[in-house]
Amino acid sequence: MSYKAPLKDMLFDIQHLANIDQVAQIPGFEEAGFDTAQAVLEECAKFNEGVLSPLNREGDINPSSLKAGVVTTTPGFKDAFKQYAEGGWQGLQHPTDFGGQGLPKTIGAACGEMLNSANMSFALCPLLSDGAIEALLTAGSDELKAVYLEKLVSGQWTGTMNLTEPQAGSDLAMVRSRAEPQPDGTYKVFGTKIFITYGEHDMAENIVHLVLARVSGAPEGVKGISLFVVPKFMVGKDGKLGARNDVHCVSIEHKMGIKASPTAVLQYGDNGGAIGYIVGEENRGLEYMFIMMNSARYAVGVQGIAIAEMAYQKAVTFAKDRVQSRPVDGSIKASAPIIHHPDVKRMLMTMRAYTEGCRGMASVAAAAYDASHHHPDAEVRKQNQAFYEFMVPLVKGYSTEMSLEVTSLGVQVHGGMGFIEETGAAQYYRDAKILTIYEGTTAIQANDLVGRKTSRDGGQTAKAIAGQIQATEAALNKQGSADAVAVAKRLKAAREAFVDVVDFVAGNTKASPNAVFAGSVPYLMLAGNLVAGWQMARALLVAQEQLAKGVDADFMKAKITTARFYADHLLTKAPGMRDSIVEGADCVTALALEAF
Amino acid sequence: MSYKAPLKDMLFDIQHLANIDQVAQIPGFEEAGFDTAQAVLEECAKFNEGVLSPLNREGDINPSSLKAGVVTTTPGFKDAFKQYAEGGWQGLQHPTDFGGQGLPKTIGAACGEMLNSANMSFALCPLLSDGAIEALLTAGSDELKAVYLEKLVSGQWTGTMNLTEPQAGSDLAMVRSRAEPQPDGTYKVFGTKIFITYGEHDMAENIVHLVLARVSGAPEGVKGISLFVVPKFMVGKDGKLGARNDVHCVSIEHKMGIKASPTAVLQYGDNGGAIGYIVGEENRGLEYMFIMMNSARYAVGVQGIAIAEMAYQKAVTFAKDRVQSRPVDGSIKASAPIIHHPDVKRMLMTMRAYTEGCRGMASVAAAAYDASHHHPDAEVRKQNQAFYEFMVPLVKGYSTEMSLEVTSLGVQVHGGMGFIEETGAAQYYRDAKILTIYEGTTAIQANDLVGRKTSRDGGQTAKAIAGQIQATEAALNKQGSADAVAVAKRLKAAREAFVDVVDFVAGNTKASPNAVFAGSVPYLMLAGNLVAGWQMARALLVAQEQLAKGVDADFMKAKITTARFYADHLLTKAPGMRDSIVEGADCVTALALEAF
Repeated sequence: MSYKAPLKDMLFDIQHLANIDQVAQIPGFEEAGFDTAQAVLEECAKFNEGVLSPLNREGDINPSSLKAGVVTTTPGFKDAFKQYAEGGWQGLQHPTDFGGQGLPKTIGAACGEMLNSANMSFALCPLLSDGAIEALLTAGSDELKAVYLEKLVSGQWTGTMNLTEPQAGSDLAMVRSRAEPQPDGTYKVFGTKIFITYGEHDMAENIVHLVLARVSGAPEGVKGISLFVVPKFMVGKDGKLGARNDVHCVSIEHKMGIKASPTAVLQYGDNGGAIGYIVGEENRGLEYMFIMMNSARYAVGVQGIAIAEMAYQKAVTFAKDRVQSRPVDGSIKASAPIIHHPDVKRMLMTMRAYTEGCRGMASVAAAAYDASHHHPDAEVRKQNQAFYEFMVPLVKGYSTEMSLEVTSLGVQVHGGMGFIEETGAAQYYRDAKILTIYEGTTAIQANDLVGRKTSRDGGQTAKAIAGQIQATEAALNKQGSADAVAVAKRLKAAREAFVDVVDFVAGNTKASPNAVFAGSVPYLMLAGNLVAGWQMARALLVAQEQLAKGVDADFMKAKITTARFYADHLLTKAPGMRDSIVEGADCVTALALEAF
Repeated sequence: MSYKAPLKDMLFDIQHLANIDQVAQIPGFEEAGFDTAQAVLEECAKFNEGVLSPLNREGDINPSSLKAGVVTTTPGFKDAFKQYAEGGWQGLQHPTDFGGQGLPKTIGAACGEMLNSANMSFALCPLLSDGAIEALLTAGSDELKAVYLEKLVSGQWTGTMNLTEPQAGSDLAMVRSRAEPQPDGTYKVFGTKIFITYGEHDMAENIVHLVLARVSGAPEGVKGISLFVVPKFMVGKDGKLGARNDVHCVSIEHKMGIKASPTAVLQYGDNGGAIGYIVGEENRGLEYMFIMMNSARYAVGVQGIAIAEMAYQKAVTFAKDRVQSRPVDGSIKASAPIIHHPDVKRMLMTMRAYTEGCRGMASVAAAAYDASHHHPDAEVRKQNQAFYEFMVPLVKGYSTEMSLEVTSLGVQVHGGMGFIEETGAAQYYRDAKILTIYEGTTAIQANDLVGRKTSRDGGQTAKAIAGQIQATEAALNKQGSADAVAVAKRLKAAREAFVDVVDFVAGNTKASPNAVFAGSVPYLMLAGNLVAGWQMARALLVAQEQLAKGVDADFMKAKITTARFYADHLLTKAPGMRDSIVEGADCVTALALEAF
């Protein structure tokens, strides 16, 4: 079925939760107010609904294929990418200096969601280019920037991230690819990289690989890793493409989902060495790669929201159409569309509440990113930076884990038809499963949340967020409607559970690392659940205000009901999770290895 | 990877939770004590590990295919089915009168688990034959029994269940297939049936279809449905196969999982009418079909346990082998197998606890089934019948829903490799998703739990079970170890949550059906969680007793840790679910249809 961008909900978040008007006060974003957001999102919706969404199922049926080192993408992808590039979508958030549109992430994130709802396999190509652009912007030499950035920003070329090797997945200390310095300042790169998304394809003239490798003699471990640009085709001084570089696609993976997206094994240096250019300084590669990864982690979180939205839309359409059985309340005397059955509503409301909650969380995080990078006041930048960094593992970890549940419910709503591939619901279920794995598994996100984001500052950022949530509870109680008060009660219980866990984590990470890391993923899930639920609570306050003003009553009532559902059905999980984390750590690691 | 039957755990359950010695006191089961159980399970393990497990991945790669009405199953399946039949496995639980072995379900269920762990797609064929056999045993005429039963029990022929039609999935009132009475007492059957598992295949000489259809002039709705036997090949008086009957496979589905199992669209009567024989009386078809379905629902619950076990075994093997990163507690100074990481242990423990808990629940339910059918004392039969009937939706609904989480964790433990089809973990994830759908979706199980199993007797059976659980809590507190007391605390909280929900359900089903059915699936999940956790608590008591006696210390310690994990990490979900069900019903159905 075709995708319909949830423009109203996106714009509600951008306006009321992310406060676009405040973003538009930041120098450089003066033009990026609500009206711009609306215009960009509407245009973006047209493109994704019209061009990319119709290609999604085709990508599943006719995945990318490899023949003699050449990857042919799904029919229609190449032309769609041309349109994507010509529409300027690749440059949306990138600096105008290099041909981008310089829009804030607050707007860009919503566009990213549309792209991924319409066609997640396609969207991965621009997603990786974004990462490459950010790494070059931050650490690339002026020369590298001059040669590569404009072409990447325009979508004429695409970018990749080359981290993983057969023995080095989450553990980058084990990277073995090597780079030998050459007299002319370039390097010769050798090694095998796996799981390289769009590592080879036919949608752009050139591919700019960003590759982690060790310079001969570098220290062991992650402190000896450097970052290189290795183009597929060499680039002449005139910007024209020259000879083929010594990097080759030797196979692509046969995956459960995102089949249209070619996942390449790349072989570097089999014929004398691939010519590479160092990015920044030697041995600081991991640091630069984290720039790409942080950008990509947020974007993968948005992928979770995007596929959840799509699964929801498809399930709603089916539930309104499929006629089976009479409603239990006797309101209809004949077999009725299944959306009349309470359990089908429960499934749809669960899908909806998760999706809207995570969208709110991502939107607010995006606004913090914009302020952290561009606000004139250093203190404001710092606060927003801390908030954003706390949000990244939640956006990535929680939104992707929830997408597994939502896409599973999506199949379930379809009943037996959901299991038949032609229906299309199964594709979302299969596609989604990669999201909790790539760009750092949920456990890796949780390590980040525990280590860098909670223990390091003694739980200070976490507690500051808890303080903001407490203020929302007070506002809800002050508002005083039955829904607001009920939501405040659940929010309070979840926030108190969160604070308990933060104390447990901050207090024990050094002394009892096993106990803390035994609960790291549950902590992430609790935190994500809380923050998404908090955004729903904030949305409820706005909706009640707007409703009182008579603005868009149907939408506002639905928002209130969805917020209430989030509180009563999802936030209610939090206290039990606290018990598991704080009181149930020992039994996680108690079993002898031989007993498994 | 190859499957290794968890014989020790199965026999622990059969001996200590299901009390096989009590089952063996029932007339007819005198030979079916622990020693028999052990001997049968060991033999069964050999067959499934050696013959069926190696074919599982092949079935995913080379699914059944249809050409000119003929279905060719996966290479190796036909021969494996021959071995299955020759080994007497089809007749395990069926009466000796018809060539079966007459063993109790307490033993048969464990064999069913093995079969499904080894090869779920294959196992579906015998599973459906079991249903056909039970329906004929209960309602078939002596003539039908004489012609069909022995051949089905021996595995020479196989059986199918034909319920679903394009417009009639969960809603059997909408069945349109029709049967015209013929002067000779037979019927001519016409109609289209979809989703017919092993509706056509090449593994047996004949296929015995059990088909729901309406006799001309029958009442509308479910009270006008009759059940027919329609053989693929006519059977002569001498038992020899005759002409092809007018039932034909016109297509098979392209599914997300269980690909080796052909899911047929069957066309009845395109050439004058398929000859059918009525089972029992006209218009009582649904009643008889429920016999097949109840048997099949329990069996599908066991499929959930089976695939969870397989996913767990595969994840453990990978986690012990895959080396990535150093343990957070510094216990190993180099990169270590990932099983050393607390979050990997958490995932494996979750998989293990769910699987063992549900296995315990299924084992206890099987013993109740045996007593309910065969115990000489009518009161004992009645009590066990009530208990078993309460368990069926839990075994089916909870064990299959948990299998989705467990197979998802199985992929997650594998990281990126899990998403690659060649690894095999993805197959379990894809295969499992059908389990919450077929033989009645989770919502259908929940309707059964709410309506027939809870409201009808005013919550009496549910409260009786709660009373038994309370007794286990007392025993745990009396035992007094830290683990026992901790488990008792979680069990008490979960049991109290359950009782609250039972009161809510029993008290409101008639007056506020929307409110009750809005929480029907959460109620099922809470009840299943509680009962499985209760079995883990009972297992802990046994294990501490055995440990004190010095019996199999490693196994008993692992059981205690797993029970503790179940309590602290899974039972802790119960109170939050109570809140959602009892206090959060209204928002489930509040949203206007147009707002979706």
